[in-house]
Amino acid sequence: MVREKLKELGIELPVVNPPVAAYVPAKKSGNLVYISGQLPVRDGKLIMQGALKSDDDVEPAQKAMEQCFLNGLAALTTVADLDSISQVIRLGAFVASSPQFHSHHLVANGASNLAQKILGSAGVHSRAAVGVSALPLNASVELEILFELKS
Amino acid sequence: MVREKLKELGIELPVVNPPVAAYVPAKKSGNLVYISGQLPVRDGKLIMQGALKSDDDVEPAQKAMEQCFLNGLAALTTVADLDSISQVIRLGAFVASSPQFHSHHLVANGASNLAQKILGSAGVHSRAAVGVSALPLNASVELEILFELKS
Amino acid sequence: MVREKLKELGIELPVVNPPVAAYVPAKKSGNLVYISGQLPVRDGKLIMQGALKSDDDVEPAQKAMEQCFLNGLAALTTVADLDSISQVIRLGAFVASSPQFHSHHLVANGASNLAQKILGSAGVHSRAAVGVSALPLNASVELEILFELKS
Repeated sequence: MVREKLKELGIELPVVNPPVAAYVPAKKSGNLVYISGQLPVRDGKLIMQGALKSDDDVEPAQKAMEQCFLNGLAALTTVADLDSISQVIRLGAFVASSPQFHSHHLVANGASNLAQKILGSAGVHSRAAVGVSALPLNASVELEILFELKS
Repeated sequence: MVREKLKELGIELPVVNPPVAAYVPAKKSGNLVYISGQLPVRDGKLIMQGALKSDDDVEPAQKAMEQCFLNGLAALTTVADLDSISQVIRLGAFVASSPQFHSHHLVANGASNLAQKILGSAGVHSRAAVGVSALPLNASVELEILFELKS
Repeated sequence: MVREKLKELGIELPVVNPPVAAYVPAKKSGNLVYISGQLPVRDGKLIMQGALKSDDDVEPAQKAMEQCFLNGLAALTTVADLDSISQVIRLGAFVASSPQFHSHHLVANGASNLAQKILGSAGVHSRAAVGVSALPLNASVELEILFELKS
C-alpha cells in the first residue's frame, strides 16, 4: 500500500546506499526501527549544500528534507517492509544554519508534511528541529527518523 | 499526585499549544512517550530569545529550561495522565549559543532539577546537552523529553 | 566476554563519574539503556577541547570519540552487566566545529569502529553525526549511546 501511495504521488523510492561497516542505515530493536541521519542525497549527489542564511533558503531546504525522508523510507526497507510501518514516532531535523536563521521548524515541515502525505495518520509524529553549525559533507540538512512497526 | 505536587510547588501547568498538522506535541509508542522539542513559551510568548554568550546568561536560561520542562509535562497530557509517568528516561537539551559559551550543562540543570523536584526519584534521567547555532523563532533553548509510563 | 575482549585489545575500562543528582550516566527502560552524552574525559580531564576547524583535527577527534565510547561502556555498568549487551542501537555524535568543517562523519567513525572492534556484530548501529557550535566545558566531541540488553 505504501508503494502504491508512492506511485500515486509520482514518487520513486531512492536506492539505499550500501551499509558502511560498523554503521548501517537502519537498526531494529523490538518493533522500533532507528534510521541513521539521512542527508539530502539524490542519485548519489547532495541536492543542497551550505548553511541556511535567510528565509529565501526555506523552500529549497524543505525539498532537501523531503529527500531525506524518502532516503529514510528506503533505509527502512533494509530491515523491514514499508507496509509494516505502524507509526512514525519521531523526526530529528538538523538544519545547518547561521545564527541569524530562525525558521528551522518551517524547513522540518518538508519532512513532516511528506510523512503524512505518504503514510496518512500513521505519519503523524513528534519532532525536534534545531540549527547546527555544519553537517557532514557540507549538507544543508540531516534527518533522523524513528519508526514503529506493526507487531 | 503529580498535580498535587505542582500545586504544592506553586506551579501551574501550561496550556498545550494545539497540534500542528503532521507534527504533534507528544507521541506514544508502547509505554514510551516522545515529547516534541519544547520551546520556552509562556502565555504564548517566548520568555528568552537569542544565543547565550556568557555565564551571565546561565540563570535566565535555566528558567527558560524550566518552562520547557513544564511545557513538556503539559504536552504529555495530550496522550497520557501525569500520574501514569513511571520515569523520565531522557532529556535532550539544546542551547543556542556562541562558540565561546561552554556551560550548556548548567543550563540543562534547570530542566533536570525541576524534573526531580516535581517527580522525585521518577524524575532521575539520562541527558545530553549541546550548543547549537540557533533555534526555531530565535528561542534560546529547546528541550526534548522521553517519558516512560507505568504499564 | 566483553571484559576479556577489552583486555585482549589492551583497553582499560574507565572509572564512571559518580551520578550527579537528577541526572545519571545511564537510564534503563525495558531492555534499552540510554547513556547520557559522554565527553572525552580520561583520568578526570578532557583529552580534547575546542571546535574542529580543519581535517587535521579529524584524527585527534576520532581518539576523543573512542574515549567517549569507552566512557559510555563504563556508564552502562552502573545499570547492567557488559555481557548483557545484545546490540548497540544508536550513536548520536556531536562534534563542536566551525562552519567550515564538514567531516563529522569521519570523526564519528572513531566511536563506530571501536564499537564493532569491542562488540563484534553486536556493535553495528544506526548513527547521526552533526556539527554543533560548542559543547559543555569546551569539549570537542560528545557521544550519546543507546544499548539494547539481552532479554
